[in-house]
Amino acid sequence: MSENAKNAPLSGATRLYAIVGDPVAQVKSPDGVTASLRARGHDAVLIPAQVAPEHLTLFFDAATQLKNLDGLVITVPHKFASYRYCRSASERSSFLGAVNVMRRRKEGGWYGDHIDGEGFVGAARKHGRDPKGERALLVGAGGAGSAIALALVNAGVVELAIHDADAERRDSLIARLNSLGRARVFAGSPDPTGFTFVGNATPAGMRPDDPLPIEVEKLSPTAYVGCVVTAPPVTPLIAAARARGCTTGVGGEMYQALQEAMIDFMFEARP
Amino acid sequence: MSENAKNAPLSGATRLYAIVGDPVAQVKSPDGVTASLRARGHDAVLIPAQVAPEHLTLFFDAATQLKNLDGLVITVPHKFASYRYCRSASERSSFLGAVNVMRRRKEGGWYGDHIDGEGFVGAARKHGRDPKGERALLVGAGGAGSAIALALVNAGVVELAIHDADAERRDSLIARLNSLGRARVFAGSPDPTGFTFVGNATPAGMRPDDPLPIEVEKLSPTAYVGCVVTAPPVTPLIAAARARGCTTGVGGEMYQALQEAMIDFMFEARP
Repeated sequence: MSENAKNAPLSGATRLYAIVGDPVAQVKSPDGVTASLRARGHDAVLIPAQVAPEHLTLFFDAATQLKNLDGLVITVPHKFASYRYCRSASERSSFLGAVNVMRRRKEGGWYGDHIDGEGFVGAARKHGRDPKGERALLVGAGGAGSAIALALVNAGVVELAIHDADAERRDSLIARLNSLGRARVFAGSPDPTGFTFVGNATPAGMRPDDPLPIEVEKLSPTAYVGCVVTAPPVTPLIAAARARGCTTGVGGEMYQALQEAMIDFMFEARP
Repeated sequence: MSENAKNAPLSGATRLYAIVGDPVAQVKSPDGVTASLRARGHDAVLIPAQVAPEHLTLFFDAATQLKNLDGLVITVPHKFASYRYCRSASERSSFLGAVNVMRRRKEGGWYGDHIDGEGFVGAARKHGRDPKGERALLVGAGGAGSAIALALVNAGVVELAIHDADAERRDSLIARLNSLGRARVFAGSPDPTGFTFVGNATPAGMRPDDPLPIEVEKLSPTAYVGCVVTAPPVTPLIAAARARGCTTGVGGEMYQALQEAMIDFMFEARP
């Protein structure tokens, strides 16, 4: 790996990373992650791999034997299923029962982690807002919401309110997070009164007629507001929060932080 | 597929082609073929895939199910083994019992072809030397030599002399070529006297102390001389032939013609 890898052509020596999903045409990371890999001096490329759920076992069997494949990024709908193919996994992956990144272990097999939540936290930190000590409200307890909730708890929020229309999955997530004993986690509402750190982990804002996920008129101007939606780049929630004077983190920033975290993961010392 | 694909970034929509070998780090085609694919308007990339012989079946099983993989280029040591994974194949592949390119069939499964010899013929044609009607001498009856011999016979040489230190494989190839009834094929020697079209399909010239594959002092100045060796770019054989006034085709030209032929193959109407 040389200083010149950034401009090195693709060759037989280029190491492979694959993002696995179905469909996969919508993912943008092959370009950005490949550019970052090369900027860091790695002769490597992130390629898309479209694998149907019924062929996931076959894919992993072959991927394990593909000698020039070093890591995998996992996306919808394979994050939960792929966890089962990891010989070992991070504590947060085990908590979530899911992975979004996998790398080879020295001893063979794959090590998995789930770092979607780290992207959300990383975007906030880029704006000088570490979650430590914050009073957080999170809307959405699905796959992304669960990962972000866990990341917020692990990053040291003192309390976390979770709002989700599906009360069962909301309460299940709350109970599991409370079992960690790290923060007070409870059911929230769309009312952000009293919260210093607010996150949207729902698709609200992707379509022009989506309702706002929180009552923006109750946002404190000192609150941080983050959103997972990447298209449009600035959602109505973010626009409204900015109008109130809030510091904001958009989906694109979360996504950028996540891409860098993916590469960090691939090259960390093997556990 | 657009005019802009040439400069399009790698994305989730990029179609995959893979060159399969073991080792694979030495292959150069990912860069050149990817550039040609993009120059032709295809959002596609050729990636290296290092697959051990004992995992070739598993690889093909998974590759068949990988939805965004459209074609395969096969290199050492898999050209013969991969023929067995083709549901159908070209006449020349069946003759050689080997393939170096595979594309998907409309009906499912893979269609294989072997076009190494077309690269050699293509390089000659770029120099205005169609093999049709030529009296050819070929040195080397191995994998590359067999493919080139067949391509020369199919391109219409009137006679083909084959020289190889291994008399058994030489005579076997000669017998099989004669069974086609297209040209008179017989055992040759390093003496090019009387031949108008001379090819080297051995590694001779890769190392500085390699002996010359033919008696260059007996080359006719009107003969065409082609060589498969790509490093060095100009072998002692080619240098000597040029010194005698011969038209020459170097390994790099064969290789370039082969890369274009590979892309032609991938996008031909499905048989």
